[in-house]
Amino acid sequence: MIEKRIIDAINNAKSIAILPHVSVDGDGLGSSVALALALEKMGKDITVYIEEEIPATYEFLPGKDYVEVYKSNPKKHDLVLALDTGDLARLGKRIEIFDNTDLTINIDHHTTNTEFASLNLVKTTAAAVGELIYQLIKMLGISFDESIATCLYVAISTDTGGFRYSNTTPITHQITADLIDNGADVSKISQLVFETMSLKKLRLMGLAIDSIEIFDDGRVAFITVTNEMLKKVGAAEEDCDGLVNVARNINGVEVAVLIRQRTDNEYKINFRSQNYVDVSAIANKYSGGGHKKAAGCTVRGIMEEVKEMINKDIREVL
Amino acid sequence: MIEKRIIDAINNAKSIAILPHVSVDGDGLGSSVALALALEKMGKDITVYIEEEIPATYEFLPGKDYVEVYKSNPKKHDLVLALDTGDLARLGKRIEIFDNTDLTINIDHHTTNTEFASLNLVKTTAAAVGELIYQLIKMLGISFDESIATCLYVAISTDTGGFRYSNTTPITHQITADLIDNGADVSKISQLVFETMSLKKLRLMGLAIDSIEIFDDGRVAFITVTNEMLKKVGAAEEDCDGLVNVARNINGVEVAVLIRQRTDNEYKINFRSQNYVDVSAIANKYSGGGHKKAAGCTVRGIMEEVKEMINKDIREVL
Repeated sequence: MIEKRIIDAINNAKSIAILPHVSVDGDGLGSSVALALALEKMGKDITVYIEEEIPATYEFLPGKDYVEVYKSNPKKHDLVLALDTGDLARLGKRIEIFDNTDLTINIDHHTTNTEFASLNLVKTTAAAVGELIYQLIKMLGISFDESIATCLYVAISTDTGGFRYSNTTPITHQITADLIDNGADVSKISQLVFETMSLKKLRLMGLAIDSIEIFDDGRVAFITVTNEMLKKVGAAEEDCDGLVNVARNINGVEVAVLIRQRTDNEYKINFRSQNYVDVSAIANKYSGGGHKKAAGCTVRGIMEEVKEMINKDIREVL
Repeated sequence: MIEKRIIDAINNAKSIAILPHVSVDGDGLGSSVALALALEKMGKDITVYIEEEIPATYEFLPGKDYVEVYKSNPKKHDLVLALDTGDLARLGKRIEIFDNTDLTINIDHHTTNTEFASLNLVKTTAAAVGELIYQLIKMLGISFDESIATCLYVAISTDTGGFRYSNTTPITHQITADLIDNGADVSKISQLVFETMSLKKLRLMGLAIDSIEIFDDGRVAFITVTNEMLKKVGAAEEDCDGLVNVARNINGVEVAVLIRQRTDNEYKINFRSQNYVDVSAIANKYSGGGHKKAAGCTVRGIMEEVKEMINKDIREVL
């Protein structure tokens, strides 16, 4: 059993590196720090290396003292674990740490995982890698505490969109029950992770809502975000994340489009569909890609003409 | 044990009425319809009486064929169950049904419950009455199915704000695990209940965001909603629900205020605090009330003067 071999590897190692994927998210970081806290209890010497700074949202995570932004010249470790990382490219320049370690472990839940390590634990039915780390900590016989529970709660709740995505399973909820039992503070964490928004992002959302255009009897909604809008509220590129869902969630909307101006005549376009429209087919037309219900592409031209063109593409499949 | 007496009462009854509270919400309606679906399997004759029409959000609930908007002249029932109802006033005019029935049961989780029925099952640790109905259905030995699981999932997820409020317990998640196992469709229900918003409400939110005023280094945020704004987007009074949270969720905000114009010189004011400010003390000053972190009052005057007055009150306790 692969779990047994992973446990042996951990037991035999002294110095351990943990690597979540680049542009780390709640699952990658929460799982990594939870495992660090647990392995610390076994007397291990642990470092979690990340590619960029900790995102502001996750600065409250206990155990962030284990986290180090990787620069260069990797230390020698007995063991390295890559978490929530589908392939080696997702390690960024921390591939150096991976290459510099003899024994490597890959714990992940992506269907696209390339099984790139010496030992690979890939469970695609897991909603979050946090679930796999929960089970690993149990198998290691380490007791849970509030800090570990908090980190795993963040991992699982973020990767399931707050228990709302279709990846959420009975196991997700069973594990979460145990995390709350071990001290995870539901309302405090939820407020920090899901509710809090910067004033800049909120003001950008206000402008985005003002920009909404509705077509085809309410079945198509466009949001337009220009550079001028970003400048007006002092928002950054990342503040556009999720804005397309504002349009998708309007009652009756089947296709939602976010047009994000990049330069004077270049636009990044995000598509979402609610039920039956395959938006990846539209994105493909413009050398973009994605899934049936979430896709994107980049288009050049004059704003009004681009909108009209996309609208026509949508109308054909609506 | 009270549960045993409730089960006996149900077993002995043929015609059963179920009454959730007025202005029915996800827990009241979901619990009622879930119980109706379960008791139907026992061959009972069931009606769920509600005070107003089913809210649009919950029209997808299976088993809504059992639901009837009560008019007058109650039928005679062998047994009536009031669910999620703290006191008799919360039954509205359906008190007539209650008064017309010899055997009455009260199943609730409000700390303020007045134990108004023949048999009272009040568990204030339950996050939702949906949890109590889940346990009751188990004790009745009725098998769960997708419809019952869906209704109870709606009940529990709405009363916990999508598993985000502090009332969420390990038991909440254990029950939810079982509901998903029995067929509750997480992403479909979550989309319908939590994500979807009417265009009118969204446009009102856009105007509300535009109206945000920030004071005291970002620790106080005001949102103002005028009658003109409602008219502009065709929104209704109920579309103002939750708008105060938009201000409360801004990073760094301790006190959020929603000023809702009712007439030319009358304003309904909602307060929320994030951590330490007791907003009920401010609301009390104007003959309002509420809790430490959520309170409200009504104030008359000129808009700008009202704002300044409230702002001064807040500054004193900030």
